[in-house]
Amino acid sequence: MTNETAHAPGHWKDLSISYEEALVRLPEALKKEGFGVITQIDMQETLKAKLDVAFPRYRIFGACNPSLAHKALLKDPRVGVLLPCNVVLYEKDDGTVVVGAVDPMQTLGAAASGSGLEGVAAEVAVRLERVLAELSA
Amino acid sequence: MTNETAHAPGHWKDLSISYEEALVRLPEALKKEGFGVITQIDMQETLKAKLDVAFPRYRIFGACNPSLAHKALLKDPRVGVLLPCNVVLYEKDDGTVVVGAVDPMQTLGAAASGSGLEGVAAEVAVRLERVLAELSA
Repeated sequence: MTNETAHAPGHWKDLSISYEEALVRLPEALKKEGFGVITQIDMQETLKAKLDVAFPRYRIFGACNPSLAHKALLKDPRVGVLLPCNVVLYEKDDGTVVVGAVDPMQTLGAAASGSGLEGVAAEVAVRLERVLAELSA
Repeated sequence: MTNETAHAPGHWKDLSISYEEALVRLPEALKKEGFGVITQIDMQETLKAKLDVAFPRYRIFGACNPSLAHKALLKDPRVGVLLPCNVVLYEKDDGTVVVGAVDPMQTLGAAASGSGLEGVAAEVAVRLERVLAELSA
């Protein structure tokens, strides 16, 4: 038996609010967990500009909790290839808006083992789960 | 026997050029492989501004190859939590400058399995390895 969810990149929730409302509420929910939005990529716009293709509304927010980022970087400066933590909003073909967050345990994978990064990654994971829960409540 | 390199986040190379020169040459090397730099984070500046702590020179480049990103997003839109691909430059305590790139096979981990994303991830991995090789040549 396959469990597609277990193998998806990141964790995801369907939302019952509009894309526009989610764009406003997501940064607020992140802020409550200590994350600032330090990068934003409008993928619809990027793909239109670079490839001239049509793509649904899709935005990637790079979220950074400075204290947790600092703690992780002190443990292993190489962890920067996994920063910031991405949170994504997009609109599915049927109009449903979904929110997803990177799973730092998943992206660290074997790299977490023995590096001391597991604790920070677990803390980030818990906070991002609360952000998804708040938005989908 | 432990192999620390195998468990590090991303792939890394020591450089024999200065940090300033690497800042110029990295975007050029990425461009040759079809990647534009769509985000940049100066971690030294961010940590100083947010936490008032001193940190070495450290920059995270978000690199995006639009065709490969589009291909991956069509296979599974959830892959956006792993975009863009990060390439990092920083200065070690001894002054050595290092460059690192995310390993898309590592970050996808189990998520790649059966999703059709392996092919794109492998293509990205090969190109990022060439960027590191060019910079460290």
